[in-house]
Amino acid sequence: MNYPGGIKKRCSSSIISYKNRGMTLESELNESNTYYKENKIAYIYKKPTPIKLVRVDYKQNLIKEAYFEKPSTTDYNGIYKGKYIDFEAKETTNKTSFPLCNIHPHQIEHIRNIKDEGGISFLIVRFTTLDQTYLLKGEDFLIFLEKEKRKSIPINYFNDKGYILKNTFRPRIDYLKVVDKILEVE
Amino acid sequence: MNYPGGIKKRCSSSIISYKNRGMTLESELNESNTYYKENKIAYIYKKPTPIKLVRVDYKQNLIKEAYFEKPSTTDYNGIYKGKYIDFEAKETTNKTSFPLCNIHPHQIEHIRNIKDEGGISFLIVRFTTLDQTYLLKGEDFLIFLEKEKRKSIPINYFNDKGYILKNTFRPRIDYLKVVDKILEVE
Repeated sequence: MNYPGGIKKRCSSSIISYKNRGMTLESELNESNTYYKENKIAYIYKKPTPIKLVRVDYKQNLIKEAYFEKPSTTDYNGIYKGKYIDFEAKETTNKTSFPLCNIHPHQIEHIRNIKDEGGISFLIVRFTTLDQTYLLKGEDFLIFLEKEKRKSIPINYFNDKGYILKNTFRPRIDYLKVVDKILEVE
Repeated sequence: MNYPGGIKKRCSSSIISYKNRGMTLESELNESNTYYKENKIAYIYKKPTPIKLVRVDYKQNLIKEAYFEKPSTTDYNGIYKGKYIDFEAKETTNKTSFPLCNIHPHQIEHIRNIKDEGGISFLIVRFTTLDQTYLLKGEDFLIFLEKEKRKSIPINYFNDKGYILKNTFRPRIDYLKVVDKILEVE
């Protein structure tokens, strides 16, 4: 699920309707995280979307009016090999670049904080039309933002600095293999 | 906020109405976490309560019907000194013991998983009537569960194995001081 309010207006080029589609990046990541958990490899969860409650019937445990809010952090976090893992996952229908309006300023600040505190921070970006998924380290994402004053990250940057994530059977997306590589280098 | 559905029925002795009260443990912890964040000490957040959506008007970004769900993990997680931090915070009006119905089986499993994976896991429990707040390491919580087949943890166990958290000015509850002690020993 995306956050239909704010993001849609500014970032329409990369909004995807999830209705009647195959597996989304989110569901594949959730499946992978379940696999990691069941096999005692890692404990990584998607955070629930924050919601602003307006009317609630607590007796019935029923929310009658509420609104989606923009998250101030990233979507996923957890622990792997004792390390703090933190990432954001996004899909785009664009073929040549990833529009930066998908990641809002609070999230960028969060990615920087996690990196500075010694956590493993990254983005997972799927170019749905190309059926290509990348992991880009938070550090390389921040370097791009600082150097280039562009509104999107060209796919070449992902090819150059990122890691390609292939679909596999179990887990669906074995992104912790890439995290292993990152941990080896550090 | 608590999860008004399931827990209330089984655990009424320790449910507190937060309306018209002073600062709750949750708001004090949120304030402390904001302090830690602003001072670049740690990045620890409360996860939003998971919600089951039933009717949503996506055009208006409006949730028309939804229900609170029980979380399967703990309420707070984040990073401190590169370490994964994970905890649950609970208040009880009981004076002599902390009723275990406050922590459900999925959360116990989660606490065990985090400990095994090398994370820093704990409970923060406030006895509101006594105005006493404790930090109890996940490990000591699990040891109690394994040894004692009781429905509540006596306050003596907190006095014996836990750490007292005093209220301070900024941050309101400096629980990372205790985490420092835990890290020193490990």
